[in-house]
Amino acid sequence: MSEAPEFLRPVKVHAADKGQTVTFGPDKPLKLDCGKSLSPFTVAYMTYGTLNAAKSNAVLVCHALTGDQFVASENPVTGKPGWWTTTVGPGKPIDTDRFFVICANVIGGCMGSTGPASIDPATAKPYGLSFPLITIRDMVRAQGMLVEHLGIAKLLAVVGGSMGGMQALQWAAAYPERVRAVMPIASAARHSAQNIAFHEVGRQAIMADPDWRGGEYQLHNVSPSKGLAVARMAAHITYLSETALQRKFGRSLQDREALSFQFAPDFQIESYLHHQGRSFVDRFDANSYLYITRAMDYFDLAADHDGKLGHAFGAHPPRFCIISFTSDWLFPPAENKSVAHALNAVAANVSFVEIKSDKGHDAFLLDEPEMFQAVKGFLNALADS
Amino acid sequence: MSEAPEFLRPVKVHAADKGQTVTFGPDKPLKLDCGKSLSPFTVAYMTYGTLNAAKSNAVLVCHALTGDQFVASENPVTGKPGWWTTTVGPGKPIDTDRFFVICANVIGGCMGSTGPASIDPATAKPYGLSFPLITIRDMVRAQGMLVEHLGIAKLLAVVGGSMGGMQALQWAAAYPERVRAVMPIASAARHSAQNIAFHEVGRQAIMADPDWRGGEYQLHNVSPSKGLAVARMAAHITYLSETALQRKFGRSLQDREALSFQFAPDFQIESYLHHQGRSFVDRFDANSYLYITRAMDYFDLAADHDGKLGHAFGAHPPRFCIISFTSDWLFPPAENKSVAHALNAVAANVSFVEIKSDKGHDAFLLDEPEMFQAVKGFLNALADS
Repeated sequence: MSEAPEFLRPVKVHAADKGQTVTFGPDKPLKLDCGKSLSPFTVAYMTYGTLNAAKSNAVLVCHALTGDQFVASENPVTGKPGWWTTTVGPGKPIDTDRFFVICANVIGGCMGSTGPASIDPATAKPYGLSFPLITIRDMVRAQGMLVEHLGIAKLLAVVGGSMGGMQALQWAAAYPERVRAVMPIASAARHSAQNIAFHEVGRQAIMADPDWRGGEYQLHNVSPSKGLAVARMAAHITYLSETALQRKFGRSLQDREALSFQFAPDFQIESYLHHQGRSFVDRFDANSYLYITRAMDYFDLAADHDGKLGHAFGAHPPRFCIISFTSDWLFPPAENKSVAHALNAVAANVSFVEIKSDKGHDAFLLDEPEMFQAVKGFLNALADS
Repeated sequence: MSEAPEFLRPVKVHAADKGQTVTFGPDKPLKLDCGKSLSPFTVAYMTYGTLNAAKSNAVLVCHALTGDQFVASENPVTGKPGWWTTTVGPGKPIDTDRFFVICANVIGGCMGSTGPASIDPATAKPYGLSFPLITIRDMVRAQGMLVEHLGIAKLLAVVGGSMGGMQALQWAAAYPERVRAVMPIASAARHSAQNIAFHEVGRQAIMADPDWRGGEYQLHNVSPSKGLAVARMAAHITYLSETALQRKFGRSLQDREALSFQFAPDFQIESYLHHQGRSFVDRFDANSYLYITRAMDYFDLAADHDGKLGHAFGAHPPRFCIISFTSDWLFPPAENKSVAHALNAVAANVSFVEIKSDKGHDAFLLDEPEMFQAVKGFLNALADS
């Protein structure tokens, strides 16, 4: 068999690397919020642990903006450990010895689920910007179809951080009868003006790169790597706290004794950012970055329900455990708290955990014993009840 | 006389638009921290009000990163009012009926003072990246020569916000005997890791633009406008507070009733950022942006004095009035306070004013009555004493 054309592999994800996949054919289109449908479409996912006979121990983990389905196992593209091995695995807070964990690449992503880099069957070329705009609700709709495909009528829980938390909240709104509890971590029920602004800077950086070619870079065998790296660098600053940056890097110089009086990186923080930018472009697709950031910008759960967040979750909402970190300025505690307040107002069963941490938004990915305890305690109590 | 070649006018500043200028010849080179000298070099400046007979009423106002000498009069490039007409002018807190106000474009700038867009006499071409790296100290050294040229032995005060505040602090350190008081506003004695990070993102955005051409864009009659606009957009977010963005824009849509499901700006905050980016590239030189941000990154007054900020100002420091805004996350109150503490430790005469405001870093440019009162009160008391 001949090698696939280069544009079939915009990011280095090969068929064997996607984990498991399910493709929904023309009989099961994905109806999108924009009014269009996506068909056929594929969802790439991973599972960990064993589904019990009652099919009552399934936990769906939702990934953040640049995450993927490899939550608890080596990422085949980067060769690095899964992105949440701190939290998911045997004996971990989301214990795969007890729970059946599912994690799917979002629609619009670039790790095997259908996204802008996928081939549009109508043209036999990559979608590029002809891919329809997707929303968090669309992502969750695709996950709903996956969960149904796996024969699971009711999930024990949906858990996710950042954009993953948006999906968890959307699950509670879209399918309150199909999930017993949701756990949004370091998240929000709407994207703030400041966050939209940062996303727009990233998108403009990508689109300003002439190698973006109006989104058709795959057809030209080029890649807007410089623009994507700038987008990543800007975003990365928002994932950390000022305190963490100061502690980690301060004004320390990189491999030198004195200022160089040149534009090459003098400071460790600069080298660190460059590294973040470089390594990101090797694993992520620029158009996926555009689509997924846009989906986050569009997210506003209250607006979908007459401006009343409490009304989003129906008469019988699932249980909620909302976790937030004090130094997270991207999804600040106040945003998380306002979700808890809205839920209290409709007498939902909600726990709110504010964790003191100086690690910023990224805290949810890091070693945070208080978070581990909250996640573990909540899930185990739920499963035992 | 024939039209000057295009590269002589990288930004639309014509000779007549620079205000006043003084050019220091080969006998008066500007000795730079990097070890090189700049010669000849020009300082473009504006003055407002009248120098009294005792020459004791001169106030030097220092501008921020993208500011210029047009502090209190129409900017000839943009046609807009001066950048600090809230604070400087007849009857204003820095009252030009009483004080003789001087404001100079910094070395490295692009409004008439020698900078990377200036012609290198050695090559008869724009300096571009062959322009030496400059520091805040170098900027202040050039200002010191200007003030001497104006025949002023001792300034009443040096006042500035943001990078202007860095210059004010540097004045106190470099020439404590030539200034009676300094007033750094929304500033810091060193640039933080987070601020260096944001600057590096901006620089990378500029350098990623192929029209930057290794800094030689003037020779090619092009301009890295897209990269510079991205840099400006990212920076602009840091000038505002999350609260101000939420109040001003929230999630309001721009000229539409519903989400467009396209990448064009849906949200007002996006249109606003685009506008900021577009208007900036019309008035600012990309290489100047690189040089001036680097100068800010390099600023660390304590490091220049064995790590002890208190030691920076000599045995007879001038008086200090330090002003800070609660919602400024670029130069947070804690940074400003630490300067005050260091000064207290060496028994300097220091006032510290923390102003409650939700307008972020930009507050110092806006209508802030408490700041007006502090500036006016401090300056008048100083002049009366």
